[in-house]
Amino acid sequence: MGLIVQKYGGSSVADAEAMKRVASRIVATKKAGHSVVVVVSAMGDTTDELIDLANQITPLPAGRELDMLLTAGERISMALLAMAIKNLGFEALSFTGSQAGVITDSKHGRARIIDVSPGRIQEALNQDAIAIVAGFQGISQDTKDVTTLGRGGSDTTAVALAAALEADVCEIYTDVDGVFSADPRIVPTARKLKSVTYEEMLELAASGAKVLHLRCVEYARRFNLPIHVRSSFSNLEGTWVVADQPEGGNMEQAIISGIAHDKSEAKVTIVGVPDRSGVAARIFQSIADADINIDMIVQNVSAAATGLTDISFTLPRTEGSKATGIVQKLQGEIGFQSIQYDDQIGKLSLIGAGMRSHPGVTATFFAAMADAEVNIEMISTSEIRISIVCRQADLKRAVKAAHSAFELDADQVEAVVYGGSGR
Amino acid sequence: MGLIVQKYGGSSVADAEAMKRVASRIVATKKAGHSVVVVVSAMGDTTDELIDLANQITPLPAGRELDMLLTAGERISMALLAMAIKNLGFEALSFTGSQAGVITDSKHGRARIIDVSPGRIQEALNQDAIAIVAGFQGISQDTKDVTTLGRGGSDTTAVALAAALEADVCEIYTDVDGVFSADPRIVPTARKLKSVTYEEMLELAASGAKVLHLRCVEYARRFNLPIHVRSSFSNLEGTWVVADQPEGGNMEQAIISGIAHDKSEAKVTIVGVPDRSGVAARIFQSIADADINIDMIVQNVSAAATGLTDISFTLPRTEGSKATGIVQKLQGEIGFQSIQYDDQIGKLSLIGAGMRSHPGVTATFFAAMADAEVNIEMISTSEIRISIVCRQADLKRAVKAAHSAFELDADQVEAVVYGGSGR
Repeated sequence: MGLIVQKYGGSSVADAEAMKRVASRIVATKKAGHSVVVVVSAMGDTTDELIDLANQITPLPAGRELDMLLTAGERISMALLAMAIKNLGFEALSFTGSQAGVITDSKHGRARIIDVSPGRIQEALNQDAIAIVAGFQGISQDTKDVTTLGRGGSDTTAVALAAALEADVCEIYTDVDGVFSADPRIVPTARKLKSVTYEEMLELAASGAKVLHLRCVEYARRFNLPIHVRSSFSNLEGTWVVADQPEGGNMEQAIISGIAHDKSEAKVTIVGVPDRSGVAARIFQSIADADINIDMIVQNVSAAATGLTDISFTLPRTEGSKATGIVQKLQGEIGFQSIQYDDQIGKLSLIGAGMRSHPGVTATFFAAMADAEVNIEMISTSEIRISIVCRQADLKRAVKAAHSAFELDADQVEAVVYGGSGR
Repeated sequence: MGLIVQKYGGSSVADAEAMKRVASRIVATKKAGHSVVVVVSAMGDTTDELIDLANQITPLPAGRELDMLLTAGERISMALLAMAIKNLGFEALSFTGSQAGVITDSKHGRARIIDVSPGRIQEALNQDAIAIVAGFQGISQDTKDVTTLGRGGSDTTAVALAAALEADVCEIYTDVDGVFSADPRIVPTARKLKSVTYEEMLELAASGAKVLHLRCVEYARRFNLPIHVRSSFSNLEGTWVVADQPEGGNMEQAIISGIAHDKSEAKVTIVGVPDRSGVAARIFQSIADADINIDMIVQNVSAAATGLTDISFTLPRTEGSKATGIVQKLQGEIGFQSIQYDDQIGKLSLIGAGMRSHPGVTATFFAAMADAEVNIEMISTSEIRISIVCRQADLKRAVKAAHSAFELDADQVEAVVYGGSGR
């Protein structure tokens, strides 16, 4: 007997049949005695189709109007889902982001939630109805315009609503059975994790694991809201994302929870940079001003003879040409020798709260890489993460080697991957 | 220099190309120095496709959720149209029915407008922007739920907004060049009318002419708002719907403005009804209680010998079986002999404010019918209309004969029919 917020992505409600399956699952939760709020994404490829339509009109659609357009997608899915639930004999009411009280700033296409005032949702729950809420959207505080939350938006809506309603759990339904110790497509013996901490999940999300988006995990951590990541295609228990590993969990707690990998980055190296103070700041400020997120940075010790050093950094490959263009413009001012651009890199990250109390993780890891003949090009660490950059061609081999080195392999294949992913 | 409200139906914005064409036309009006508010319907067949989706989920979708679903249609078209206008270098902002202040009652699927508070539209106009408003939709006063206005809804939205904004004219763009003296598909020499009065347009709409819906004409008459019905595919002047024929118009004013016809009705005859007071009231009250609109009613003088009479009435054919079922149930109580049902009828209506001051219209009309060998089965008249019911097979011949008898034929073919029609 509690309040459960469930989020279903686009692939879970891709057509009428899928919609009816989801409705049955929601009704089963309701029948079990819980109050239920459902956050839903647009059906299947609807969002892409709407973007296509916009691009037929103009290559650069205005943000306000694009948000108005895209929010039609969730409007369709939430109304249909409410109909499907009512058809099973249970009361259901659909609400737009605005009606659900999701108040955001005015940054169209990537609005941030400022406040959630779910008065109408609470009212619906008081009347014993199931509330269906459009994910991904809100209304701006200043201009009262419709906004969208950008990537991972529906997950964020679900967690934000769950926090505001003080729900017992936010269930994120997806097309995999949970969070795995590595990508099952690369490591078939990857284990499904029973639970991970918010910190671990944040590092996993930031390191390329695509199950949950960074923003929604940050939101859940701030409000200490448990997330349960599970499959909409099975009834299996999934992965819990919580503040601390459950009691007794430490006994069997692995040092490393999981291994994430990322092939979407590129590396920029600025060769022969004069080693004087302020130069690195100048470069990275210019890049930050262009709204480009940099991931790892490495600067070598400068050669005594020349006073010159090399600076390398990684960034999303999609930002590559923009970033090199910005650096190029600084050549006259700074006086470096040349720029190298490399989009054949791969990143591997080892993540685990357990490594805090276990020295020797780095040694074990590097030994495994050496055995697998993987050359490490860059290294970056946090308290619960070690990331390396290697050749993209070596990445699969590196992931498998690390997974085995930390004894993460399951006795049998656990993962089933069901379909595409929602937003 | 005035304020013009333009309404474009679904066929005018069926795809990206059509949308761009409409955008150019809107911008041309703006360039001419006018303030412009645009009401737009859903693109092409979007509404039907959404209804199909709903029917895949349930045969009886809940009204509230169906309205939520269908309003996604205008949301898509209005956002795209705003993008197309901005792409031409003019500021445009789209607004939902709710944002535009269209306040309705709570009757989902056929809501009536209670009030229009277009504060945000006025604000957009003050900022020199073109306001794009979703047709067909509003928000209920009591429950703050999204509602739709039912048939002819977008026309009604346009006229209601124009009235609230005190616009100079409401231009209704459609796929014909205006209102014609008869359906050009039946009478190729039908004339485009330069203007008709609200009264005439109401009678035309009620008698089967599909260019404008009854509701929007009633609304325009109440606020004395001029409507200009014209084609979105040409730049021709269309037909003005106004309070009075323009000055001097009387000189060349025809007695009859137009001839409407309707093949969508059926006739029910109750045979051998006891001719005592209260019987007809009992029958028609029962039918009215079932929300069925009756059109014409004829009761014969009762035969002296039997004290029995026949009562005939016409109604939309779609309501036929429901109405006969209701009457059947009254047989025991009233004691009539039998029910006859006839769905092979056609209705022809002669409409013209001029007939008020011209006696002999009826005689000319009946003579034309007799010459054309059309048998008149029922007759109904108002101050500016004469309607008859005949065999459906005779209807075309009857329309042509009446058109000629009142000298309505143009010297040449004026009408061009361009495509499907919006809602």
